[in-house]
Order: sequence, then structure tokens, then C-alpha cells
Amino acid sequence: MADKLGPPLKTPLFDTITVIGLGLIGASIIRVARQQNLARRVIGADADPAVRVRAREIMLGDQIADDLEAAVRHADLVMLCIPVGAMGPVGAEIGPILKPGAIISDVGSVKASVIAAVAPHMPAHVHLIPGHPVAGTEYSGPDAGFASLFVNRWSILTPPEGTDDAAIARLTQFWTEAGANVEVMSASHHDIVLAITSHVPHLIAYNIVRTAADLEAVTQSEVMKFSAGGFRDFTRIASSDPTMWRDIFLNNREAVLEVLGRFNEDLSALQRMVRVGDGDGLFDLFARTRAIRRGIIAQGQETAAPDFGRRAAEAKV
Amino acid sequence: MADKLGPPLKTPLFDTITVIGLGLIGASIIRVARQQNLARRVIGADADPAVRVRAREIMLGDQIADDLEAAVRHADLVMLCIPVGAMGPVGAEIGPILKPGAIISDVGSVKASVIAAVAPHMPAHVHLIPGHPVAGTEYSGPDAGFASLFVNRWSILTPPEGTDDAAIARLTQFWTEAGANVEVMSASHHDIVLAITSHVPHLIAYNIVRTAADLEAVTQSEVMKFSAGGFRDFTRIASSDPTMWRDIFLNNREAVLEVLGRFNEDLSALQRMVRVGDGDGLFDLFARTRAIRRGIIAQGQETAAPDFGRRAAEAKV
Repeated sequence: MADKLGPPLKTPLFDTITVIGLGLIGASIIRVARQQNLARRVIGADADPAVRVRAREIMLGDQIADDLEAAVRHADLVMLCIPVGAMGPVGAEIGPILKPGAIISDVGSVKASVIAAVAPHMPAHVHLIPGHPVAGTEYSGPDAGFASLFVNRWSILTPPEGTDDAAIARLTQFWTEAGANVEVMSASHHDIVLAITSHVPHLIAYNIVRTAADLEAVTQSEVMKFSAGGFRDFTRIASSDPTMWRDIFLNNREAVLEVLGRFNEDLSALQRMVRVGDGDGLFDLFARTRAIRRGIIAQGQETAAPDFGRRAAEAKV
Repeated sequence: MADKLGPPLKTPLFDTITVIGLGLIGASIIRVARQQNLARRVIGADADPAVRVRAREIMLGDQIADDLEAAVRHADLVMLCIPVGAMGPVGAEIGPILKPGAIISDVGSVKASVIAAVAPHMPAHVHLIPGHPVAGTEYSGPDAGFASLFVNRWSILTPPEGTDDAAIARLTQFWTEAGANVEVMSASHHDIVLAITSHVPHLIAYNIVRTAADLEAVTQSEVMKFSAGGFRDFTRIASSDPTMWRDIFLNNREAVLEVLGRFNEDLSALQRMVRVGDGDGLFDLFARTRAIRRGIIAQGQETAAPDFGRRAAEAKV
């Protein structure tokens, strides 16, 4: 009878994908893998029993494993979607169980330290290709995931030298079919790029929110009321997952301190302009930074709607 | 025949409102004044002939004056919607022309310096009530204005001691009918509140965008591509009007430097936590800042939609 139905429209890229860690990113990967038919079977695993219960309730993927061994034994692609600090221990646990030819990847926001922590535990018969989809929201947990999270975002792969090209191509296809663009770079370059585009911005955002909370002259109620003046923008990224961000700063220390040093130098110069009343210097700087946003919008990485389109969002919620 | 139509539904709050400066805020005030029938007549004025041409094209208010004297001669409410540095000169020009009983207000983001610059030019027969609607977008110019900009935002009034209560009540009603909440405070308190909720956040945003642009190790193309990691949020407020922001920093120097000093102290402590690898300290701080955002959302000053609801906005544009 099969011939009367015609051939299957698509041969899934993988037979079995296992996603370890069912937070925002892991849940989104499962959602898009099912939606785009990227695997015949998508298995989820999480160390937290409450998360596993919730994942089953919201029918995340095909099966939720209680046992890490069962979860990865048949996997052709294992995606580690856990905090950077947990990568080493989980790598050690799954290394001996992995199937020959399996691809092991991750979504950690730091790459050099993940490679250092995971690579020693990998058997020679698997392909370790660390990765990082630069996408997310300020929400955490399995309910926060959604299939379109990666559309038009960039996913960075940092394969160690000598990695099998066919495996890289297959993982690239996975991300492409998930809607993302893929860029390959070294782990160390990734870590400095992310220090400026993500890690230091988060550190600064956490810091200004703390400064505001601790200021005696201004009440917390006032900070909240008048936050539309700019402050509220910072609170979004300062409400991201604390465990994840703790691990990022512990594991990308060198690049973060390097970029933070530059930021501090620049801020001292700017502070001096304010102190001495250098209006021309301030104007020139403020005029210059507009161009960067226009570039980001032109590259499709940002909305051109005023205020991030908040009004449209408010109308919906 | 009038009796067959019934009485007018509303007596406008003012006969004539004159808005000087047709940027984002001035244009929005004109739009809401017409929409809510807050005046029988709304007159616009702007020093830039090109802006006046554009304002006529988009039919901003009832009349656009080429002449400041004609614009304010009959005004019952004059709103100065110009950069903070221009308040003094414009105040000097219009002071002698103002009608007895007129209310003079403004929308400047700094209040003590505006009072110092404008008050000496005001005749005794007018009411000077400086104000600041804490609302805006990153766009500038007459086309950027829209009537709902002030809905559910806070408008701060900083009347000098001895200001006529009836005039304050009337201006309060103006903002209330425009959709805003009103809070009265001293000019000096306003200036420190805005330093933390708006001015220093903008300074930091401008600074990180500059640091990113100048980093040799990372290309501008990379900064743009991977900006979804957090950086792009900062570029929004760093694309605000340069003249406006130059004047804010020149005129709120003391409060900005005070708050910036706190920010720097806090950032040094945080930098040290990263350097020494104080994971518990980082976690505690990152967990603490989440509560502030929840408060801002609960107070209706922010959307709860993930990513500011950017996806909804992208779908629209």
C-alpha cells in the first residue's frame, strides 16, 4: 500500500536526537525538531524530576527519560542544553554510553571551557562539535520553549581541529532546518565575540539594576514607576536565569575581564566629558552609536518598531 | 438649532495650547491634545523650517506658526518641547509676550537647570510649572509622534514653591486626560530619580555600543550578527537623539556623576567576583535583580511578553 501514498516527503536528518536539559533552549530544540521532522524520535532528559513531570504534561518530544543512560544509548545526536558548569560531569557520565558515530553538541554560551571539560570524556568513535545558538528570551524552563526561537538567529559551531567534515555538515544542516544561520569559528574567538555581544552587556545590566535597588535617595517604587525612561530595558536581560549566568562568568573570565576593562576605560573617558562639560565630545559619541543599531536592523537581527514593538505586545497580553 | 444637537460633549481644558518644538514629544502632545479635545486650538512652532514644512504636511494640530511671537501671544498653555539647552533662550524670547494667566510648562528631562534658565524670564502674571513626561521611543522628529505615547506612563511636575494650586490642578488634568499618571516632586529629587532611571542607563548604553565598535578583536559585522545575545537591547536607547542627550548630561551633571559613582563602585565589586570566581556571590546578585523586573511589569510599566514582544513587532513590520 505504501506505493499508493508515494514516498515519504522527508527522510529525517537523524534517527534519534536526545536533548539533555529541558530549559528554554532545550525545549525549543525539541519543539523545532518535531515541527520540522528533524528526527524520527526526539528524547528529552533532565536532572530535575519536576521538570520531567512538566515536560511530559506539555508533551515535549516523543519520550522523556528518567535515566541518562537510556536517554543517550541510541542517540545519533546528543544536545547538551545545561548550564556550562554541568557540562563536564554530564559528559563524564554519558561518554562511555555513546553510540559509535554519534554527534555530541551543546548550546553553552562559553566554548573553550566546555571543550576542556567535555572532550576528555568523549570516546574516539563520536564527533564532538560544540555549538552556541545566539538566541533566547529572559524566560527559563520547559514552558518557555518555542519552535521559532532560532529563526533568522545565528548558531555558532566551534569544532576542534580535525573534526569530521561530514559530521559538521550534518549539524549545520540541523541548524539550518531549524531556521538558523550557521557560522563556524574557533572556540577562543567565540568567547571574545560573546563577551562583548552578550556577557558584558548582561553584567552591566545586572549591575545597574543592583545600583538602582541600593540607592538610598530613590525608592524602589520610584525606580519602577519611572523605569520607562530607559532603566526597564536593562531589567529584561537582568532577569535571565541566575545559574546559567553564574556559570558563564565563572567560565569565560578572561574574555569578560578583557572586554570589561575596555568598557571601564571608555566609561572613564565619558565620565570625564560629563564632568568637564564637553558638549561636542558627547554629541559626536551619541551620533556615532546610532549607525550600529541601523546595521543590526538591516541585518534582520532586530525589529525597527519603536520601543521594540512593546505596544503591539501590550495589546496582545 | 444648537439646542437640537444638545450641549457640547466637552468643554476643552484650554482655549489655545502652543507647543514649541515638534519632535517626538511635542508632536505626540499635539496629537493627543487634538484627539482628546484638550484645547479648542493647538498651535505648533519649531525653529527648523524643514520641520515646520513636514508638520504642515502631516497636519500636526491646527496651525503651524513661523513666528514665535504669533505662536504664543494667545496661548493659555505653552509647552516647551525643546532640548534642555534651548530652554533659556526660548524662555527669554517668549517671556515678554505671554498672556496673563498662561501656564508655561516643559517636557525636559532635567528640571533644576530648566527652572534656573527659564524662571528669570517669566513675568509675574504667568504660572511656570516645569514638567517631564517619562515616555518616549528611540525615534525623533514630528513623524515619530503618536497620541497614545503617554498612556499609563508617569508625568512628573516640579512646581516651584508658591505656585498657584489651581494652575497645577489644571496642568495635572491635562496630563491625566492625555492618559498619564501625575506625580509632583521637587526639581532636585526629580533630577536624581531620573539620573538612575534614565540618564545613567543611557550613558552606559552609549558606552557599551562604543566599546563594541572600537574592539579590534571583534568585527562590526560580528557585533551585529550576534547582537541577539543581549547587546542589541542597548543599541535601542543608544540611538536616541544626540542633541537632546548632550544637553541632559551637560545640565544634570551632579546627579549623573553621583549615580555613576555608585554604578562604578558596584561594578568594581562585581568585576572582583568574576576575577576571584565567587560563584555564590554572582548567583545571589543575579537572583536578586529578577524581582525588580517583576515589579515593573506588575506596575504596568513594562510588557510581560518575552523579548519585549519583538516577535509580534517583527510580524507587523
